[in-house]
Amino acid sequence: MKAYTEMSKEEMKQEMASLKEQYKKYQDMDLQLDMSRGKPCREQLDLSMGMMDALNSGADLTCEDGTDCRNYGVLTGIHEAKVLLGDMMENNPDNIIIYGNSSLNVMYDTVSRAMTHGILGNTPWCKLDKVKFLCPVPGYDRHFAITEYFGIEMIPVPMSPDGPDMDMVEKLVAEDEAIKGIWCTPKYSNPQGYSYSDETVRRFARLKPAAKDFRIFWDNAYGIHHLYDHDQDYLIEILAECKRAGNPDLVYKFASTSKITFPGSGIAALATSPNNLEDIMSQMKNQTIGHDKVNQLRHVRFFKDIHGMMEHMRRHADIIRPKFEVVLAALKNNLGGLDVGSWTEPKGGYFISFDSLPGCAKKIVHLAKKAGVTMTGAGATWPYGKDPEDSNIRIAPTYPTLEDLKTAAELFTLCVRIASLEKLMADEK
Amino acid sequence: MKAYTEMSKEEMKQEMASLKEQYKKYQDMDLQLDMSRGKPCREQLDLSMGMMDALNSGADLTCEDGTDCRNYGVLTGIHEAKVLLGDMMENNPDNIIIYGNSSLNVMYDTVSRAMTHGILGNTPWCKLDKVKFLCPVPGYDRHFAITEYFGIEMIPVPMSPDGPDMDMVEKLVAEDEAIKGIWCTPKYSNPQGYSYSDETVRRFARLKPAAKDFRIFWDNAYGIHHLYDHDQDYLIEILAECKRAGNPDLVYKFASTSKITFPGSGIAALATSPNNLEDIMSQMKNQTIGHDKVNQLRHVRFFKDIHGMMEHMRRHADIIRPKFEVVLAALKNNLGGLDVGSWTEPKGGYFISFDSLPGCAKKIVHLAKKAGVTMTGAGATWPYGKDPEDSNIRIAPTYPTLEDLKTAAELFTLCVRIASLEKLMADEK
Repeated sequence: MKAYTEMSKEEMKQEMASLKEQYKKYQDMDLQLDMSRGKPCREQLDLSMGMMDALNSGADLTCEDGTDCRNYGVLTGIHEAKVLLGDMMENNPDNIIIYGNSSLNVMYDTVSRAMTHGILGNTPWCKLDKVKFLCPVPGYDRHFAITEYFGIEMIPVPMSPDGPDMDMVEKLVAEDEAIKGIWCTPKYSNPQGYSYSDETVRRFARLKPAAKDFRIFWDNAYGIHHLYDHDQDYLIEILAECKRAGNPDLVYKFASTSKITFPGSGIAALATSPNNLEDIMSQMKNQTIGHDKVNQLRHVRFFKDIHGMMEHMRRHADIIRPKFEVVLAALKNNLGGLDVGSWTEPKGGYFISFDSLPGCAKKIVHLAKKAGVTMTGAGATWPYGKDPEDSNIRIAPTYPTLEDLKTAAELFTLCVRIASLEKLMADEK
Repeated sequence: MKAYTEMSKEEMKQEMASLKEQYKKYQDMDLQLDMSRGKPCREQLDLSMGMMDALNSGADLTCEDGTDCRNYGVLTGIHEAKVLLGDMMENNPDNIIIYGNSSLNVMYDTVSRAMTHGILGNTPWCKLDKVKFLCPVPGYDRHFAITEYFGIEMIPVPMSPDGPDMDMVEKLVAEDEAIKGIWCTPKYSNPQGYSYSDETVRRFARLKPAAKDFRIFWDNAYGIHHLYDHDQDYLIEILAECKRAGNPDLVYKFASTSKITFPGSGIAALATSPNNLEDIMSQMKNQTIGHDKVNQLRHVRFFKDIHGMMEHMRRHADIIRPKFEVVLAALKNNLGGLDVGSWTEPKGGYFISFDSLPGCAKKIVHLAKKAGVTMTGAGATWPYGKDPEDSNIRIAPTYPTLEDLKTAAELFTLCVRIASLEKLMADEK
């Protein structure tokens, strides 16, 4: 098909008439489809139902070290859970705290603690005139929501397939002591599915921030969330690299089993240096007596070890890989060569990132919504919800059924075509 | 037996010799007993093992409203959990947020949010020169730890069997705008087992604090934790009373199932006014996507309803009532008439409060420790761990076996006698 940018006015008009007709048909279908959030689908959740039998009324809920998981205690999590999540996160179990059900909550608490008490004896952020965070864009809206809530100024940093623009990151953190952190989803990033290159991770570990209490918020949410058995991304382990670079305290690393077992009923973890761990525990001991050890034990008994977990992730991949492929096929078939946008082709994670012509994203999401398909709000991938180009749209293919997703993806590309053509026709005038 | 206070010097010497001999025997027993924390014992935990079967791999984890508990969402908790905990807390389900595994964590977060963002649009506490809390004493060390951690000045308020000294509370909160809260365990209080009188609750609901953002932190931790079937304490429901008194926003009320099912693996809740709920949710939505709904559903399916929960609590009572009675019998038999201390006789909760002669508590706890019985640290029941009289000791009878508890209680009273006698003999000089 001819690129829209090369069409004559008349060709454009004809094409628009045809698109509008197709769109009308979708509207008549009364669709109610959701591609907005990175939610596992029912079949994925079914994979973990066996975990409900991992602990029954006849089970011994005692840890290897004799701890009765049913009672109070064990602030940082049971040892066997640290071993399992240590293998998952590629960190020493001794560097890990096991938390409750949400890594987002751990990140929130980490920022909140820095606000009220500061990091490692530095001034509490709430006592400073200005605190800033770097935000690789597009990125994860819930990260941005935390920093926005605490009144932290967010500075966008462009992403490339290798990760954030490290020239910019290095320069900014070296110059500005008010910059206290950066949000990263380093592997199968949200929303692009990019994994940081070795060069990027190495440069992160060697940052020379002006602020002593600058921390990298390394949200490794999709560390083992591969789509393919062999064609996988590998990431240099950041804690080890920071230690080697002489910057052991530079990173807070987060992960959870939310998209491994049950979102909301998984276990979350933080890995960091001994100094940071001690700092965190001096706060945590006032916040709680301990997290849910029974659920920690349930996870360990269900998976047994990291191999069990990886086999489980293959079954997830088998369910969601076809969904990614359906969306990518629709994008390629319906938009390929039209010159109206670009998209990523991730090997893991939960999202595909789509970039429309400038000024079209809101319109596309609106058109999709009007025909019954909910997308993540345009702008959500930027701090303050403000995408200056109005071009980025996050596509979340996992939740709908394959059948629904085909329909939704077709409709989405149709909306892209309509919005793009409208823009090009308006530009002509 | 003759009161120690009436003994002659010679009688005291003889008595001391006999006590020391008995103490030596305990030391030779190599005891390792723990009466320090309010932990359920193994038999109590066994009562809830059936909960592990409430959800198995064949179960439908769908709520009545169609929510799949295995997936993301539902910020404030599933409706059926709100109904169950609403019945437990005597509050409308619509006034309740269901949280994670720890009400302490909810209290911490409530203070933390007030520090960084203020309450209902008032100045964040971290921006104020001084923030103060009233602390009825003796009280719960973990409450005090939270306010101490946030640098909040704690003002002790004496407790009576009717609750805190309300003349003092009314006067202080009316005069001092820096006073932002008060810690209360209104029913079967920690550590005395006192329940606030109707008069006390009524006066709480009618407080006229100078600070608009003053809140009562009403930790109803032992709301249904009765020791006796019929001889139970009843408490006026504080939210309803505040509403009737025209002070609907005055209270945050906390509870959990920690001492109903499994400590650390229960569910916690907060009940408060619609205004406060809205205020809290504007923060919570940035902190988490939702708490563990599977565990909420597990609790609901296990108990079915409040009657099921009350029957369950009777079984708890059957296990721990004899333990309270053993301790109370030892106190009465070994200390009655000696004039060396007083103690409470609770009808519920987890503790007995003991008051020694002034200046003896530390010594008693130390003597017990040296003979292998761990008590809660003397002073722990006071802010900053400083009991000005050095007299209060919290006794936690639930965790040890009945057999061990007999030994521990005997030893404890022996330590009281030794320390008291030492003091009286020193006073003589």
